[in-house]
Formats: sequence, structure tokens, C-alpha cells
Amino acid sequence: MGQTDSNKPRAVCLLSGGMDSAVSTAQALADGCEVHALSFDYGQRHAVELLAARRVATSLGLADQRVLRLDLRAIGGSALTSAIDVPKDRDAAAMGVGVPVTYVPARNLVFLSFALALAETIGARAIYLGVNAIDYSGYPDCRPEFLDAFAHTARLATAAGAEGGARFEIRAPLVAMTKRDIVLRAKQLGVDLGLTHTCYDPAMVDDLVHACGRCDACVLRLKGFAEAGMRDPVPYLPAAERRTRGG
Amino acid sequence: MGQTDSNKPRAVCLLSGGMDSAVSTAQALADGCEVHALSFDYGQRHAVELLAARRVATSLGLADQRVLRLDLRAIGGSALTSAIDVPKDRDAAAMGVGVPVTYVPARNLVFLSFALALAETIGARAIYLGVNAIDYSGYPDCRPEFLDAFAHTARLATAAGAEGGARFEIRAPLVAMTKRDIVLRAKQLGVDLGLTHTCYDPAMVDDLVHACGRCDACVLRLKGFAEAGMRDPVPYLPAAERRTRGG
Repeated sequence: MGQTDSNKPRAVCLLSGGMDSAVSTAQALADGCEVHALSFDYGQRHAVELLAARRVATSLGLADQRVLRLDLRAIGGSALTSAIDVPKDRDAAAMGVGVPVTYVPARNLVFLSFALALAETIGARAIYLGVNAIDYSGYPDCRPEFLDAFAHTARLATAAGAEGGARFEIRAPLVAMTKRDIVLRAKQLGVDLGLTHTCYDPAMVDDLVHACGRCDACVLRLKGFAEAGMRDPVPYLPAAERRTRGG
Repeated sequence: MGQTDSNKPRAVCLLSGGMDSAVSTAQALADGCEVHALSFDYGQRHAVELLAARRVATSLGLADQRVLRLDLRAIGGSALTSAIDVPKDRDAAAMGVGVPVTYVPARNLVFLSFALALAETIGARAIYLGVNAIDYSGYPDCRPEFLDAFAHTARLATAAGAEGGARFEIRAPLVAMTKRDIVLRAKQLGVDLGLTHTCYDPAMVDDLVHACGRCDACVLRLKGFAEAGMRDPVPYLPAAERRTRGG
């Protein structure tokens, strides 16, 4: 991790280990912030993304990365945390329609609430998150209206806001970008996307994590690389093997 | 615990084990709801309140009580979760001025976010919480403006809200009550306040939890009982012993 620098404004960045949050975090650095990353261990089936979050934090030289353990499994309701099958081979264009079973109820609201608690504690006024309302999976809590409402609630929820002082700014630098734009922005900002992890249903092959290439997250990521004319550096299961796996 | 009953609307009730949340939960039952209580183990110093939450849930015959473990200590910033001293002997009238060190950053926002996640998962449309903006400790996230903003954010954060269907109702039946009113309402609703726990800094005497009688929470609770002309059934440290303890 890097050093803290009292001359820079502090920002809390939600860092999942996926491509979007890595680019959003790198944007906070490019914006001149001292970055305090927050990741969550919420019983996700793809916990390997926490290792990716750590790799990204180290690679970007962040001031600080914290991992908060939550028990969302006690609440249930999502293919990402329970025994429901992750859907496969959905068309990217169909993903924005309806809410998929991988939706974790109120997840971004929970994550932003913790980010706000940390921001208030360390005196940060900006919170960055990598949500994206263009090439997205239909999650309601990725939309700009939600982020605006949250920013208003944040001001009323906190001591800093209540005392008439600080406002918290919720920054979602990727919200209007396509996955292609995000891949290109990563290159521009020097983010090594080979360190990130996106797949909802990864497999180990020869001690190496392989993405399934078929879940919504993989389909969107691969579309982004294809449209940017680039090759995704992370390993995917060979096509032959993918077909034999459930989904 | 009681039985679930598909004819009743479901409600999620935040149940801390304190007096206010017990009365708020009993109000949900009186309103005809099937109650699913949610409590948090967040590293609070007064973890004995979780035992109280369990006693209250059993005594009220709730359909369900879940305890969610959180690691707010990783975020820090409050006398309730870290090594800062709990303030003692403050005047009740002075408590609404400024934000005390017992304020946990964004705590109610975090708790409500989880309540919303549970509500969406089990199909509840009402969330009850025992906040109170009259005899309160100056916490910003106890005010009606905050609750209104949260209700708006909740609609935008969830699949149910996004699909144009359900709205979530945030009910704070005690928000405009004094502590005296709350003590009287408890009696009316048949809530045994002897089962509840309020003190921020309890002590064990002869294997029995004793409230300190001097922290903000005790001062407000005792004021409520005094003004209602009733005796608080929970044991307090004798006055002589209180003076020898720090604070």
C-alpha cells in the first residue's frame, strides 16, 4: 500500500475486484484523491474476487484497503450467495430487461452505507463506485436516480451533513460508459485488467482461476473487450469444457 | 417464536433489545403485521442488549428473529464500538445539541439497508424502527427528514420498487413521542420493559446485569419512567457504587 498524504482530499472507493470498480478506483487516483478502498466479504460464491481486489489495491498503491465481513447469507435471496444456479449464455441486449436472479437485495445500498460510515470516520467527502447503467445486468441499484437519492439521504444520515457542513459526493465515473469505453479507459489509466476478476461462476484449472465465459458478467466483459478490439488477459475455460458445465 | 400467517402483511422490525425498539415492534404486532425482527451484532460494547432482543422476541411471539453479524469496528469512530469512554451524567436537555461520541457513523442507514434487503427477500413492505426525535441523543439519523429520504432511496434501490410495484414504508411509530409516552405505550401494548436493555455501560453485580444509571441512554430512560410515574423494573447500580466508576 502507498502512503497517506494530508494534502490530498480523501475518497472512499468501493473495490470489488471486478473490472469496473478497478477502473473507478483508478479514476479517483487520477482525480487527485488519497484513496481508501472498501471491499466486502459477503459470502459471495465468487470469493476469488476478494483476492483480485487485494491485487488491484496493491498494484494501484492505494493508501488503505479494508475488507468488511457481512453475513448477507442470513438474508438470502440471490444466486450470488445461495444455491440458485447462475444463469448462462444470456444475450447482452436482454440483460437490462427485468431483474436477474443474481441480484442481491439492496446490495449497493448496503455497500454505500458502509462506505458512508467509513467516509465520515476518516473525513472523506467523496465516495466512488463502479456502477454502470449502460451495459448492465438490470440491477435497479446501478441507476443514476438511485445514486442521487442516496447522496441526499447520506447528507441527512450523518453528523457531518447534519451540522450543516460537509456534503458527500457519490461519484460513479463509469455510469454512462459502455463496457468498451471502460476497457479503453482502463488502458488510458494504466489499470492492469489481468488482475481483475469478473466471473460469477469461476472454475479452477491447473491451480489457476478460469472465468466461465457464459455468465452475464463474463458476456458483458467479453463484449467490452471485443468492441474495444482488445484481448481479455484473464484465462477463460476452453469452449469445449464450457459446454459440459451446468448453467 | 410464533407461527407465520399468510393472511397478515409482513413487516421487518429493527429490534435492538432496547425499550424503544421493543415498543416499536409491539406496535407492528398491534398494527396486524406478521413480524420478522432483525437485530445486529456489530461489536457493540453493550452486547448484552442482544440477549434482551432475544427475550423480547420470544416474549412477543414474533414469527422470526435474525441476528446479523457486522464488523463496524473495522470502520471505528464511536464510543459504542471502540475504546472511547461513554459520557456520563449529561443533562437530558443538553443531549439534542451536537452529536455525541456514542454516535456510530451512519448506523441507522446501515441497519435500514439490511432491513430493506430482508424486506425485499421475504416480501415485507413495511419496516419498523424505534427511533425517536424528541427525547433523543442528538443522532442525526433519528430525524424524520432522514427517514423520508431513506424511503425514497429504498424504492429506487430495490427490484420491487424499480418494477413499479411495491413501495416500502418506513414506520417510526415513536418518532414524535417523549420517553414518558413510550413508557406509557409499552404498558398499553403489554410490553414487559423489564426484559429490555438500554444502558451503554452496564456492569455485572451478583451475576445480574445492572444499568449504570448515568449514560445518556439511562438518563433518558429514567426520565421517561419518572415522568410516567412508574418504576423502571431493570436493576441499576446503587448510587454509591455509581460514583466510584469512571465516566
